[in-house]
Amino acid sequence: MAGRRNWTRDTLVQAVRDGDRRALARAITLVENGAPLAYEVVHDLYPETGHAYAVGITGPPGVGKSSIVSSLIRIARSQQQTVGVISVDPSSPFTQGALLGDRIRLTEHFLDPEVFIRSMGTRGHLGGLAETTLQALLVLDAAHKDVVFLETVGTGQSEVGVLAIADTVVLALMPGSGDSIQALKAGIMEIPDVIAINKMDHPLAKTMLNEVRQVLALGPREGWRPPIVLAEAMRGEGLDTLWEKIAEHRRWLEAEGELEQRRRRNLAREVFQVASARARRRIEQAVQDDPELRRLLGAVQERKLDPLTAVREILQEVFHIGDEDRTDAR
Amino acid sequence: MAGRRNWTRDTLVQAVRDGDRRALARAITLVENGAPLAYEVVHDLYPETGHAYAVGITGPPGVGKSSIVSSLIRIARSQQQTVGVISVDPSSPFTQGALLGDRIRLTEHFLDPEVFIRSMGTRGHLGGLAETTLQALLVLDAAHKDVVFLETVGTGQSEVGVLAIADTVVLALMPGSGDSIQALKAGIMEIPDVIAINKMDHPLAKTMLNEVRQVLALGPREGWRPPIVLAEAMRGEGLDTLWEKIAEHRRWLEAEGELEQRRRRNLAREVFQVASARARRRIEQAVQDDPELRRLLGAVQERKLDPLTAVREILQEVFHIGDEDRTDAR
Repeated sequence: MAGRRNWTRDTLVQAVRDGDRRALARAITLVENGAPLAYEVVHDLYPETGHAYAVGITGPPGVGKSSIVSSLIRIARSQQQTVGVISVDPSSPFTQGALLGDRIRLTEHFLDPEVFIRSMGTRGHLGGLAETTLQALLVLDAAHKDVVFLETVGTGQSEVGVLAIADTVVLALMPGSGDSIQALKAGIMEIPDVIAINKMDHPLAKTMLNEVRQVLALGPREGWRPPIVLAEAMRGEGLDTLWEKIAEHRRWLEAEGELEQRRRRNLAREVFQVASARARRRIEQAVQDDPELRRLLGAVQERKLDPLTAVREILQEVFHIGDEDRTDAR
Repeated sequence: MAGRRNWTRDTLVQAVRDGDRRALARAITLVENGAPLAYEVVHDLYPETGHAYAVGITGPPGVGKSSIVSSLIRIARSQQQTVGVISVDPSSPFTQGALLGDRIRLTEHFLDPEVFIRSMGTRGHLGGLAETTLQALLVLDAAHKDVVFLETVGTGQSEVGVLAIADTVVLALMPGSGDSIQALKAGIMEIPDVIAINKMDHPLAKTMLNEVRQVLALGPREGWRPPIVLAEAMRGEGLDTLWEKIAEHRRWLEAEGELEQRRRRNLAREVFQVASARARRRIEQAVQDDPELRRLLGAVQERKLDPLTAVREILQEVFHIGDEDRTDAR
């Protein structure tokens, strides 16, 4: 890309604040690379964040999440809202045809200066995906985006790291999403704030609607009751209703004082998540670098040393966590 | 329970070795509680393990995993093999009707002294589920079980901690498992070693079979090619074939020298998993106990201190990981 500037901490901070697209692109790349400059920029901008409303969109692959996001962007823009999108692919969109096709739906917004879209792979994040998503969201928040969509594939708990920071979580399903229904019913998948059933033209859409209704009927009678929206994202149908339900959830959170509470909980969870991911990376790094630790692992593999003793010795070596570990936990 | 003995390290080790059922029950309870005695017992027995063949069974909720396991136990017993089962519930079987009903299918084996079945909830494991499953498997292995089934609900990556130690992984699907097919296709869910399509009487079973075939056709042409087995576990149909395919996979692993390699990889992964879970627990404990760390978290929640700075200070405080963290990672 032409015109790469030599950003300094101050110029990048100011340019992100001004919503400069190159600055946003650069800042998020730095975030992905875990660069010190990214850390400093977010550090400086953090007190100015909290403006953006973060909408998480999850659901099984192939359900049409990108089409839904694309339609929601159009609606948000028609209401003069500025938009950011962080789209987390399970693999590179350029190696998997199906995903590429899906991603293309977002390109209609590429020329809109008030829409900033960023795709991220799930691999290669030094600080874990939770950290990257959080930091990228903070960058877009500081750039005064009104709404930020966090789009990620989800089949259970794996998306937690990405969606843990969302204010409203939309679960997209389609006719045939039997496993997701079972997971919701069994309590393995958390009940989202809004459910969208995409591909409503499909003959089995009504069946899916009834199944979702039955699952939700098992839920709590009080508080927010997740609405179900039928949509056909390719034609943009049902998306106005979906947008309205997201807005309704937001108004409900704000009226009940829940938004502030939810953000506090989310931030605390993120901090644990990121700290744990870093601790894990540190362990992996140490075993890679330290022949003594590799020898320990070898002894486990040869059934000479039991795994937990190896774990203890590794933690002792890497973090100086001694045997008081056991006693602490009692 | 009557007749609880006062086990010592030596008596418990010997009784586990002898396959004493009370000793097994006790040892696994101790494992679940993270008791020092459990650690010592597994430590002592570890060099004697490696005999048991671990078969992981995963799949979305409601697919009939317990029925499948129950049938496989019957077949294994008819071949004079001794059996262990570690069944990981997403929630207590006693609070969720559907799961309880499913679990009941295992009761026919409760009186067989050569079958040891243990259910575990997913909550409350001090050392994380990966640690508990691994240690429980090692106990059953040391007790000379020929086959140990690791049964867990799976909708993506969440089951990794439990199945990472399996020699053969069976994925159970049913007609309507559209989300799992999509997840396999998108590469989000790992391709298992054997696929069982349960509820083969369902009119859509053939459709599911074709979808699975198409997904597998996209896979690598070399090495082990996962067979697909149609089953009706409630009637025990197709289970002989499933058992034979598991045995075939085992023979393939053994012939190629892959079993040893796979176990080495699995053990290394388990050690990282368990060490990370322990590091995470340590972080949570520290924030809970230390007012200074709670104050940091509060500053993040009030947008005064950015999350990554808080993460750094927490890691510094808990593990004495300093800022060299950043430089290390470059």
